Amino acid sequence: MDYREVDSTSEYVCRLEHGADWREEIETFADKRSIDAGFFYGLGAVQDAELMFYDQDRTEYDSMTFDEPLEVAACMGNVSHLDGERFAHTHAVLSRPDGEAIAGHLNRATVWAGELYVRAFDAKLKREHDDATDLDLWNV
Amino acid sequence: MDYREVDSTSEYVCRLEHGADWREEIETFADKRSIDAGFFYGLGAVQDAELMFYDQDRTEYDSMTFDEPLEVAACMGNVSHLDGERFAHTHAVLSRPDGEAIAGHLNRATVWAGELYVRAFDAKLKREHDDATDLDLWNV
Amino acid sequence: MDYREVDSTSEYVCRLEHGADWREEIETFADKRSIDAGFFYGLGAVQDAELMFYDQDRTEYDSMTFDEPLEVAACMGNVSHLDGERFAHTHAVLSRPDGEAIAGHLNRATVWAGELYVRAFDAKLKREHDDATDLDLWNV
Repeated sequence: MDYREVDSTSEYVCRLEHGADWREEIETFADKRSIDAGFFYGLGAVQDAELMFYDQDRTEYDSMTFDEPLEVAACMGNVSHLDGERFAHTHAVLSRPDGEAIAGHLNRATVWAGELYVRAFDAKLKREHDDATDLDLWNV
Repeated sequence: MDYREVDSTSEYVCRLEHGADWREEIETFADKRSIDAGFFYGLGAVQDAELMFYDQDRTEYDSMTFDEPLEVAACMGNVSHLDGERFAHTHAVLSRPDGEAIAGHLNRATVWAGELYVRAFDAKLKREHDDATDLDLWNV
Repeated sequence: MDYREVDSTSEYVCRLEHGADWREEIETFADKRSIDAGFFYGLGAVQDAELMFYDQDRTEYDSMTFDEPLEVAACMGNVSHLDGERFAHTHAVLSRPDGEAIAGHLNRATVWAGELYVRAFDAKLKREHDDATDLDLWNV
């Protein structure tokens, strides 16, 4: 596999703002701290969520909207550049009152409460079109 | 969002003790190593588990008990101070013999086997009551 | 619980190769970079997967095969030595087109796309047989 050795430049603990969008919060933060590459990990709860699943045959994302309060059991993702802007590639495992888990690529979600660890690297990662998957993947 | 830049003071790989309580193990360890702020990540299996879901309307946690062996597919959480004691805010994704995933806020679980990475920071994070959510959130 | 304080020797961002095996990619990388202890975190998608559940009564793994495209909502694991070879103990939460999550111990999965953060430690972790669980656990 392709890889790049990185050094960490800074690390943060963050509290997401109640009522804000989960992913947008991360991207705004990355802009503010000029994070060009990083990984983040989080937990909390959201008031609703839009998850996406990538159809590998049609090579398109399909969207699912969950208009209900959900725990964020685990959130994992990374920051890199896509089309000249910082993009937070965000996956999440959410859960319902009976414990049922739903998961996928997180497009947006309204924060109820959220706690994040963010680790920034001394690299600039860019996403470029990949023919095999029709996705925008890293140039590591 | 609110954030605090931190530096890491120490990091650990840990083996949870068979038969002990998953969350208590982490809190006892945090006390032993005087960890006032940190994040942890883990995987393993448990013999049973109590998960909780936060009802955003009633602003109360509801408890669910699973009296069955479960894989710990992913566990993520952090250490901070709550009411003068170290508290391990722990979320987990668990799974059943057919792969079905259940998830949420982990209150307690009897360890079958568990492996953890813990990263401690040079900060003291405290939880204080937040009016908007009726939860105890960080003072970052 | 048993633990070992470690220092990080190197960290990497990685792009898993389309069509390769998810776990084998990590083990090959660990061999290439001589990683004797480490943790990794990832997200992406796979074309199929074999998950395993450890039956705590029979002390045996049972295998489940999912021959379908799945998102990798969260993947967490570690690298250590088992029977003289580097082993990537890998857990994952996967998801279906409707968001349904399945999870467990990941034995193999064909990569569609995958992004990983790997952190290597200045330690050599070995797995040895543990009587209580009949598993190969760390000698921390």
